[in-house]
Amino acid sequence: MSHEPLLVGVDAGGTSTRALLTDASGRCLGYGVAGRGNPISAGADLAADGVLAAVRAALAPSGAALADVSVIVPAMAGMRASGGSGWLMDRLVAEGFAGTLRFESDLLATYFSASASDSGYALVSGTGACVIRVQQGRIVDAGDGLGWLLGDRGSGFWIGRKIAQAAVQDLDGTGPATALTDRVLTHCGVARDAEVRDGRRQDLEELVGRLYATPPISLAGLAPYAFDEEDAVARRILVEAGEHLADTLTAVLAGPGPVVIGGSVLARSGALREAFLVRLGDALDGLELKSVDDGAIGAAVLAVRVAGGAADDATLATLTRTVSAFR
Amino acid sequence: MSHEPLLVGVDAGGTSTRALLTDASGRCLGYGVAGRGNPISAGADLAADGVLAAVRAALAPSGAALADVSVIVPAMAGMRASGGSGWLMDRLVAEGFAGTLRFESDLLATYFSASASDSGYALVSGTGACVIRVQQGRIVDAGDGLGWLLGDRGSGFWIGRKIAQAAVQDLDGTGPATALTDRVLTHCGVARDAEVRDGRRQDLEELVGRLYATPPISLAGLAPYAFDEEDAVARRILVEAGEHLADTLTAVLAGPGPVVIGGSVLARSGALREAFLVRLGDALDGLELKSVDDGAIGAAVLAVRVAGGAADDATLATLTRTVSAFR
Repeated sequence: MSHEPLLVGVDAGGTSTRALLTDASGRCLGYGVAGRGNPISAGADLAADGVLAAVRAALAPSGAALADVSVIVPAMAGMRASGGSGWLMDRLVAEGFAGTLRFESDLLATYFSASASDSGYALVSGTGACVIRVQQGRIVDAGDGLGWLLGDRGSGFWIGRKIAQAAVQDLDGTGPATALTDRVLTHCGVARDAEVRDGRRQDLEELVGRLYATPPISLAGLAPYAFDEEDAVARRILVEAGEHLADTLTAVLAGPGPVVIGGSVLARSGALREAFLVRLGDALDGLELKSVDDGAIGAAVLAVRVAGGAADDATLATLTRTVSAFR
Repeated sequence: MSHEPLLVGVDAGGTSTRALLTDASGRCLGYGVAGRGNPISAGADLAADGVLAAVRAALAPSGAALADVSVIVPAMAGMRASGGSGWLMDRLVAEGFAGTLRFESDLLATYFSASASDSGYALVSGTGACVIRVQQGRIVDAGDGLGWLLGDRGSGFWIGRKIAQAAVQDLDGTGPATALTDRVLTHCGVARDAEVRDGRRQDLEELVGRLYATPPISLAGLAPYAFDEEDAVARRILVEAGEHLADTLTAVLAGPGPVVIGGSVLARSGALREAFLVRLGDALDGLELKSVDDGAIGAAVLAVRVAGGAADDATLATLTRTVSAFR
């Protein structure tokens, strides 16, 4: 066992959780993946299960125990609404943890996963979409992140809802024909049935029933179809999404800096990313776009900061290099 | 007591229910109003309570009993999904009803509330938005009515959601300033608070929390603010809504005929209705726009049809004239 302080960064998401064990120099000592870790979407017990399982898996290679860990930084969305830290701290203490627990924004962890600069931007488009501006290492401005009903323009949910709308409008005759319709019908297990009763196609009637039978957010599961299909309707959805994400970024732009991009939506090349770049245009000058697919590195950087370490380029480079042996 | 058959038309809605007692000639003998009557939104028991209360109130002036009624036509949205007629028939039979119960579409009742022609259109924009084409007295085509998540473009919900989005984008800095913001803040009981924490205004944080704490459909309650405010953002929402409703109508247009317009959204003069008419343009040729505010007359017309009576211009005129003594 090392006598250096052991630090853990956790990227706790709505579908999976990643934990990274590091020393203060950024040397990765272990990495673990587990299930859902966000108490807002998963509930406190399930979320604590997810975080603890990921942390235990990260501790395993070094043989360290929670009692040996001095700082844990879980990064997650919407922590303000989750009602304090007790749901997780109680469980950690029960397993011997006696250090500092510090929650951070998942967007800040995304930012520090690819940038050691004190100032810049993070833009995440996964199920939701949000941008932050970082100054002196803290969030000083935010854009969108307003949720599926009111915002998250250009997110996976936004794209999925547009796809569902395109399909029902195609069947309804209020929108153009699109290859997305067959994708959505198949996705929902509805067979084509052009029989009309009371003016309504029967497959449309059934599809609408299926789409309303699940929580709205599940429409995000349709998003990949827009990338798979090449027709005009799919392309238009992607272009609009890319433009929305550019506008969201533009709303917080105030000077140069790295733009760290997270989430699956902007990770794919093609019409969406092109439209994003075209819409940004001259605003791209002075911006350096970087992509990340795992916020655990940034959460570990934040843990190093909490421990008083130097969260500089060298630390980030060490973390990025050494984590690869564990995942 | 008359020995002519007594007929009842019921306009059973999500917020109130209206019943009209008539003879086969269209002479209104009573009119009653009660609470929610749609089993999908209100539940079967509460909906049956609403329908029965309205029917009893319609019977009261003539002293007739349910046993004297030969036909009841309740017109309501989404009857296909409500699982048969037992929820209402059992209650009617328990009160002595021994006649024919025939459910009809609320849109068809809207149509026959202002037209005795066998062919035409009905366009309703209330909380939701839908259009039908009528031929030989039946629905042969429909447009939109796809619900709040996927369609209902130009409906009260659609307008209310746009208003909520305009307000949060104003506070977020991702959209223009609008007078709608103060309306929405007041509506939700949130005080202006420009303090920023983690990049987010505190009033925005609280407003978003409030807007997600109620069912999405309650956003329809914001719709009137778009009509009350005169700024560019409100006007743009109304213009878009009007254009959507015109496009929905256009999608089912196939020849001339009356267009019966129901629901509160198109009942108001101003930017929305103007945009609706401008967008229709030449398509207006051969269309005669008529407005209705109560589908009970059309439900009574449909009851006359079920009883084998003549649902012609004379019957409609008699119903429209004689009902005014009762409401």
